[in-house]
Amino acid sequence: MAILRLSHVEIRVPDLELATAYYSEVVGMFETAREGDRVFLKCWDEHQHHSVILQSAPTYGLVRMGWKLQFLEDLDYYQEKLEAVGVQVDRLNPGQAGPGSGSSIRFELPSGHEMELTYGMDQVGNLLPLTNPPPKPLGMVGIAPPRIDHIFLTCEDVGVNTKFLEGALGFHMTEQVLGDDGFQVATWLEHSNQSHDIALVTGQDKGLHHFAYYVEDWTAIRDAADILAYHGVNIETNPTRHGATRGHCLYFFDPAGNRNETFTGGYYVDHDEPPVTWTEAEMGRAIFYYDGVVNQKFLTVHS
Amino acid sequence: MAILRLSHVEIRVPDLELATAYYSEVVGMFETAREGDRVFLKCWDEHQHHSVILQSAPTYGLVRMGWKLQFLEDLDYYQEKLEAVGVQVDRLNPGQAGPGSGSSIRFELPSGHEMELTYGMDQVGNLLPLTNPPPKPLGMVGIAPPRIDHIFLTCEDVGVNTKFLEGALGFHMTEQVLGDDGFQVATWLEHSNQSHDIALVTGQDKGLHHFAYYVEDWTAIRDAADILAYHGVNIETNPTRHGATRGHCLYFFDPAGNRNETFTGGYYVDHDEPPVTWTEAEMGRAIFYYDGVVNQKFLTVHS
Amino acid sequence: MAILRLSHVEIRVPDLELATAYYSEVVGMFETAREGDRVFLKCWDEHQHHSVILQSAPTYGLVRMGWKLQFLEDLDYYQEKLEAVGVQVDRLNPGQAGPGSGSSIRFELPSGHEMELTYGMDQVGNLLPLTNPPPKPLGMVGIAPPRIDHIFLTCEDVGVNTKFLEGALGFHMTEQVLGDDGFQVATWLEHSNQSHDIALVTGQDKGLHHFAYYVEDWTAIRDAADILAYHGVNIETNPTRHGATRGHCLYFFDPAGNRNETFTGGYYVDHDEPPVTWTEAEMGRAIFYYDGVVNQKFLTVHS
Amino acid sequence: MAILRLSHVEIRVPDLELATAYYSEVVGMFETAREGDRVFLKCWDEHQHHSVILQSAPTYGLVRMGWKLQFLEDLDYYQEKLEAVGVQVDRLNPGQAGPGSGSSIRFELPSGHEMELTYGMDQVGNLLPLTNPPPKPLGMVGIAPPRIDHIFLTCEDVGVNTKFLEGALGFHMTEQVLGDDGFQVATWLEHSNQSHDIALVTGQDKGLHHFAYYVEDWTAIRDAADILAYHGVNIETNPTRHGATRGHCLYFFDPAGNRNETFTGGYYVDHDEPPVTWTEAEMGRAIFYYDGVVNQKFLTVHS
Repeated sequence: MAILRLSHVEIRVPDLELATAYYSEVVGMFETAREGDRVFLKCWDEHQHHSVILQSAPTYGLVRMGWKLQFLEDLDYYQEKLEAVGVQVDRLNPGQAGPGSGSSIRFELPSGHEMELTYGMDQVGNLLPLTNPPPKPLGMVGIAPPRIDHIFLTCEDVGVNTKFLEGALGFHMTEQVLGDDGFQVATWLEHSNQSHDIALVTGQDKGLHHFAYYVEDWTAIRDAADILAYHGVNIETNPTRHGATRGHCLYFFDPAGNRNETFTGGYYVDHDEPPVTWTEAEMGRAIFYYDGVVNQKFLTVHS
Repeated sequence: MAILRLSHVEIRVPDLELATAYYSEVVGMFETAREGDRVFLKCWDEHQHHSVILQSAPTYGLVRMGWKLQFLEDLDYYQEKLEAVGVQVDRLNPGQAGPGSGSSIRFELPSGHEMELTYGMDQVGNLLPLTNPPPKPLGMVGIAPPRIDHIFLTCEDVGVNTKFLEGALGFHMTEQVLGDDGFQVATWLEHSNQSHDIALVTGQDKGLHHFAYYVEDWTAIRDAADILAYHGVNIETNPTRHGATRGHCLYFFDPAGNRNETFTGGYYVDHDEPPVTWTEAEMGRAIFYYDGVVNQKFLTVHS
Repeated sequence: MAILRLSHVEIRVPDLELATAYYSEVVGMFETAREGDRVFLKCWDEHQHHSVILQSAPTYGLVRMGWKLQFLEDLDYYQEKLEAVGVQVDRLNPGQAGPGSGSSIRFELPSGHEMELTYGMDQVGNLLPLTNPPPKPLGMVGIAPPRIDHIFLTCEDVGVNTKFLEGALGFHMTEQVLGDDGFQVATWLEHSNQSHDIALVTGQDKGLHHFAYYVEDWTAIRDAADILAYHGVNIETNPTRHGATRGHCLYFFDPAGNRNETFTGGYYVDHDEPPVTWTEAEMGRAIFYYDGVVNQKFLTVHS
Repeated sequence: MAILRLSHVEIRVPDLELATAYYSEVVGMFETAREGDRVFLKCWDEHQHHSVILQSAPTYGLVRMGWKLQFLEDLDYYQEKLEAVGVQVDRLNPGQAGPGSGSSIRFELPSGHEMELTYGMDQVGNLLPLTNPPPKPLGMVGIAPPRIDHIFLTCEDVGVNTKFLEGALGFHMTEQVLGDDGFQVATWLEHSNQSHDIALVTGQDKGLHHFAYYVEDWTAIRDAADILAYHGVNIETNPTRHGATRGHCLYFFDPAGNRNETFTGGYYVDHDEPPVTWTEAEMGRAIFYYDGVVNQKFLTVHS
């Protein structure tokens, strides 16, 4: 009975062809379907039909995020829990959310972010044979991350939304930044035993701060930076380490202005471990451990 | 309702002081307790009381392995499932299995390996503060892995034991080597979404092939080899990659002859993904992907 | 007949004890001598007596830099070449420049930087035995780089000083930034077949922009950042890559305000290879290849 | 007045097309010329016309190795030194040794290996522009090393040949294995301030043990192993570290049976540093530091 992990992210892009070129040739994802004004992509090691959906729209931003459920019965379980706290829930049948999609429920977080819990997305296989496979395909272009990793949202009231994720959805908070006034400025939560699957930072409601791709190690972060710089992509931060989650990261923007991250490191966490707390004075190091400096631009959602 | 991950490994060592020195100064674990002829150790990033127990005994080998449960009710759940298939189950109260131990059930696999499922081991904290922590302590000695990773057993009938792990205990098989006769020669299974938490290879019953420590990346595998060679530890294989699990590895022996591994890489796996199959002809690459050679010695349990 | 490489750097520090603690415990150098208000240090893999000298002085800055000569006769060779272009040269006997020092000539660059060419500094051995050595000592503290790498100076007229280094001293220019007005804004030069041993950037005369330690690879750059952040050292830039030299770097400040770098990568260059030229518009990428941004602070000498 | 570095290696291959495919598509070199039964290749970052020449011949082996000279006058300098010790020297004009070749002298080592010292090979540029270059090209296939690194020969009398390299050719010995009888079993020598440019080990005269490509770091050694295994290349040793030179290495065979190596690490050495000596008992660790085991096959020249 559980949410397993981040399943997919649907984002807005004004120029669908340009964004598709970027996500397939620079990020190195693989297109699996097109339908109307939407393009579906997956990473090479993902077995599911898609993990990123691009939707043609006037400007950048998040349409919704999807989370993978372990069992079909989890749909009822979470619908009940959500409705019990007054959240309106919509039900979708397989295929209704687009090619390859499974059975889902949709609802809004208090922050207005649209969330989808889904079971049974089509399995299309990763890019390797199931018999005697090599460890990875050769000759992929771009960064070619094996999978997506997590999502980071902005919202006006981090505390309220964190409680919602913990209460109705069973997320476990691993880290938080506590303001001097005792309110949560940012929180990190997980379902998958990774340092975080979702995080929230104070900002505008419905905002997408970034979503992240997993890469193998610190050297892969460097290789990603080489590839992005080669293509003239807007790199926001040099390779560095987060204090919170301990992960290594690199931030950059897609052509629409959606912030992307390549992430690695982080830790394995048991759900019963106590959270780490960062004080407001050390928020700089919580975000960027090395130089401890977070500029105002990084705390906004756009490029 | 689930087994979460490998919790602890208890092994036999003829010279308890020598083994303790090795596991604390070369491997870089931390001693948390001694009781009678047993020494309890944990890795620096583990919050639980212990992950390796050394027990004084005439020769090397496995005493038992323990697995962490998510809920107290999981004890009843698994006891019922085990007894339903005719397995005798013993119940232990907190502390009964030694200092820091939780509530447990104990039973034997068909191969005779003793297994323990446990809930509520004492949390003693990792080596970092809960407020504004650095990403790791400085000045640790030895390899200093953050945590243990998996266990690899030998047994006469891999197929029977794999079915037991899948059926009674809910493990998900991620990879297998199929002999030309259709029988499983080796299998890899997980509960934690990692490429494997336990694996079985054909050999003597009750055998411990090795247990593994997680290290951060390929460079940490190299650093481990530097430290082991510096101390004159018996290194069995140079740093290499497994075909099965894709992980990077290094094998070496503790002073008693128990095989240790440092492991990294591997992949994130959903429980619903189909297993990878290796043919007998490619078993060499399944084990050691680069040179494809598995010598007879590696298929035995001892140094 | 040649200058071989950068031999040593002598810098000013107001608090000699604090600076010595920083260079020995955070950088991880080894003190080899003290004399009056000067402390002599070397890196672990250097065989020569010292590579950094700290001199007590009211503020930070460069006292002088020393370069290693291959032959004793090189002293005469360079003295003649320098005096032929009107440079005043002073001669020092072994020991005259301090403990361990060899035979030297001293003179000033057009920019006023004091330079020393030296032959025969005492060899004190690295930290390994000469018979059956391990690849490195275990248990060193701090970053513990194996050796110093290069020096970067500021001067008002980069073109004049570059010509001097090429003409009188035989350096080979590997890269340059050419301003839109055709003047050199920055240059990189070598004697050792590495991408650079010395570099110049437009700024105040006699200025020390930084000196650099060599570290093994990109992961060692990360490890250095971890250590520096742990100790609260002022890190100026996150790990990144230079366009010019292709090297990976990390900048930070000693307690006196002298800028330090850990550097790796770069390329092997033959002396007969043509220089790479960066246009003024791409100077940002010449310095920091990933984000392409060089702020004004980085173009000054102090912290 | 000096030999600068290893310039090129000419080897025998029975199947010229197969070998060319291997060196261009698996190793990732670039073909620069063909003439008769010879194919000329260079690595991407090399400016000179070629660094490997394949020559059609009935079996594998070394034709000759070439070394780069700094000055045209070095030809006379070394010819005199060689003739003074009774070595016959042949002179070649530019182009005489094949497309792109410079002025050379040719002679034999006491071991019968043919050696060439050359000045003025054509510069054809590396694969990057000379203005605002990226740090490396994208999309190269195979290992794509930036350059060749060193050569390792077998000979009956290591001592005699080492003295010849030191005496007539000015090489500096950095490491040696001394047999219990006091004779040199293996030696490493340099001209380029790297840990070695050439090495000798006891074996048959005229033998090529291997030649090596430089790769960036330990992770690049791993990446090379992934690529080689993917292509089914015969990998002889897993990634490991040498005791002698401290370098990281991977050995494998071209389709003809010539041993190749990818190498990284090693140290910067001054020509005046004393050599490291390995005792016969520790020869295993001198060669392979981690497991300390050198099998008989590795001490022979063929696959």
